[in-house]
Amino acid sequence: MTTEAVAPATSTTGEPEEEQPKRMAMVAWSSDLDRVWPTLILATTAAASGLEVDIFFTFWGLRILQRNDRRVTGSNWMQKAESLVDPGGTDHLRLGKIHFGGAGTTMIKKLAADYKVASPTELLEMAMDIGVRCHPCQMTMDLYGLTAQDFIDGVQPSLGAASFIDMAVKADIQLFI
Amino acid sequence: MTTEAVAPATSTTGEPEEEQPKRMAMVAWSSDLDRVWPTLILATTAAASGLEVDIFFTFWGLRILQRNDRRVTGSNWMQKAESLVDPGGTDHLRLGKIHFGGAGTTMIKKLAADYKVASPTELLEMAMDIGVRCHPCQMTMDLYGLTAQDFIDGVQPSLGAASFIDMAVKADIQLFI
Amino acid sequence: MTTEAVAPATSTTGEPEEEQPKRMAMVAWSSDLDRVWPTLILATTAAASGLEVDIFFTFWGLRILQRNDRRVTGSNWMQKAESLVDPGGTDHLRLGKIHFGGAGTTMIKKLAADYKVASPTELLEMAMDIGVRCHPCQMTMDLYGLTAQDFIDGVQPSLGAASFIDMAVKADIQLFI
Repeated sequence: MTTEAVAPATSTTGEPEEEQPKRMAMVAWSSDLDRVWPTLILATTAAASGLEVDIFFTFWGLRILQRNDRRVTGSNWMQKAESLVDPGGTDHLRLGKIHFGGAGTTMIKKLAADYKVASPTELLEMAMDIGVRCHPCQMTMDLYGLTAQDFIDGVQPSLGAASFIDMAVKADIQLFI
Repeated sequence: MTTEAVAPATSTTGEPEEEQPKRMAMVAWSSDLDRVWPTLILATTAAASGLEVDIFFTFWGLRILQRNDRRVTGSNWMQKAESLVDPGGTDHLRLGKIHFGGAGTTMIKKLAADYKVASPTELLEMAMDIGVRCHPCQMTMDLYGLTAQDFIDGVQPSLGAASFIDMAVKADIQLFI
Repeated sequence: MTTEAVAPATSTTGEPEEEQPKRMAMVAWSSDLDRVWPTLILATTAAASGLEVDIFFTFWGLRILQRNDRRVTGSNWMQKAESLVDPGGTDHLRLGKIHFGGAGTTMIKKLAADYKVASPTELLEMAMDIGVRCHPCQMTMDLYGLTAQDFIDGVQPSLGAASFIDMAVKADIQLFI
């Protein structure tokens, strides 16, 4: 929405109504390092600017919330196999492009460190510290066989798509990353 | 926009105006199974929650609307070649990641079936049944040499980008997936 | 936001307030030809429809703004190596899918030319001609070692993520592409 649209929130009596914080609702769909970085940078920046931020972690993106020390997850062989080829945890993210068997990812991480760009692990901690709400997608948890014990501390209770739609309708910014 | 911004829709006479349904405008840009799934899940969930939903199928995403029994499409050799390497129809979608020559895609579909997640084919039918409007992009149809006869039943007339922008401006949620 | 939400912009005196132009804020995150095309088509279409359009070029997307005659960029070996595998400039974009060592990209470009779809280079020029504001991400410039001299003419001063969030909150449409 526009600032213009907020303007008429001044009530008909002429008194300004209490200002509501702006909101951002994001879908973190990918676990690629190059998508997780902008997701978490935009989320922390928005929260630092006073917005209320909700992130719905779904599909590949659910792996972002996985503890770095969890390796094989799931309860059946398909889930276990999937967890091996799609490793979770912010320390194990890989570039979606020019990964080059690890060399590209290592190089970008090195460049980021040289230029003082916070790592995904640091950004995710910071995000939760400043109030960004991280919601795991229940349907994806079922598919992967992931449970709340597989996630880092501070994660919100799991949600379904209808809850995300509800957040998105109330938000001023919606992004699917 | 925010619920807050809707609040002032109460007219200056103090009487609440008739409430307009919320709207969502999506771009379905990809034909990757892992993107089509969230597109259709969010669309059907939003429509079931009472939102009006428009999806603009463009670029790779146009192939989602192709009938499953259409194989080679287009009228010149380039279009025919493209249709062979980029098969259309919701039954033929492949993962954008860990496809593994078909094994990864088969496994995810098996997991989804085990956990009662509807297939893209079922979701697309359901979406149109509950009023989600599916608009093919005319420019992409020209590029691919696709005609209305190549699409499943129930698809809306084709549109250009200007019509999508018009929908998006009126919408409460916009997502590019 | 919705048109409905704009309606109450009619002031309490009954006189319509001056109408603000609608706004679109986009993130151009990718340099893949198949993502750059819709980004620039949507941007030019929206601007032609009277919207104010801001594009934030970040991560891979920053390469879109690179001059076509710049080849190796950056000041250290890692930045130079990255610039070689991730060539910049609208003439050098490649498909993110079915690139096929260049054959797929060449074919799609040929099809686009046959069907009078403007090239990314033409679209980017046109976009800036009709007022689309192109903002490079400062953090990405630092990572890549790119300077303002590496960019085409007409680009806006560089920005950080907080400035993008500010634009996005004021916009009627936000898209991450």
